[in-house]
Amino acid sequence: MVRVSIFYPSKPGCRFDVDYYLNTHMPLAIGTLGSAIKAVSVEIGMVGGMPDQLPPFTAICAFTCESVEAFTSAFLPNADVLQGDIPSYTDIAPVIQVSEIRLSQ
Amino acid sequence: MVRVSIFYPSKPGCRFDVDYYLNTHMPLAIGTLGSAIKAVSVEIGMVGGMPDQLPPFTAICAFTCESVEAFTSAFLPNADVLQGDIPSYTDIAPVIQVSEIRLSQ
Repeated sequence: MVRVSIFYPSKPGCRFDVDYYLNTHMPLAIGTLGSAIKAVSVEIGMVGGMPDQLPPFTAICAFTCESVEAFTSAFLPNADVLQGDIPSYTDIAPVIQVSEIRLSQ
Repeated sequence: MVRVSIFYPSKPGCRFDVDYYLNTHMPLAIGTLGSAIKAVSVEIGMVGGMPDQLPPFTAICAFTCESVEAFTSAFLPNADVLQGDIPSYTDIAPVIQVSEIRLSQ
């Protein structure tokens, strides 16, 4: 299984509308990507490694899929819609990572 | 629920022993942290947002816990053992994030 993660790096003064992201963008993404998505999570950053430290990421979204191909086959035909919605909730440029899940328990 | 994530940023020439991490360090961490950990995952980076791009992170470990306090109560008494084992598998300085899980399905 692979995980496609979208990181939104924290920046002073950045804009991120958590309510819009959770209640409008994520339902759009989940509905659009459909059965290619086996699991999904959204985390909102609280703190970094020290109590007074900003979290490295304002938000992290993770999609779990059978393969990279399963994700890209579902994502690419809908990339314009999903990426076009980004300015609706943030001015942060997202960072993408594709990983192999080696432990999950 | 909160997620405590440990990111190992990719750097050219960095060392990361995946076998040691999965087979020695993670069992040590899971055994040490005990029932404070409700779920755990390890991802190994494959690629970034473009096909020819390095993944931002060589590895990502995520612990799911009831609260920040549940994690720190289990981690702090064992911090020396767990952090002392880091040079056994990598020369990357880990980056820590604590997040609130707002969506998980």
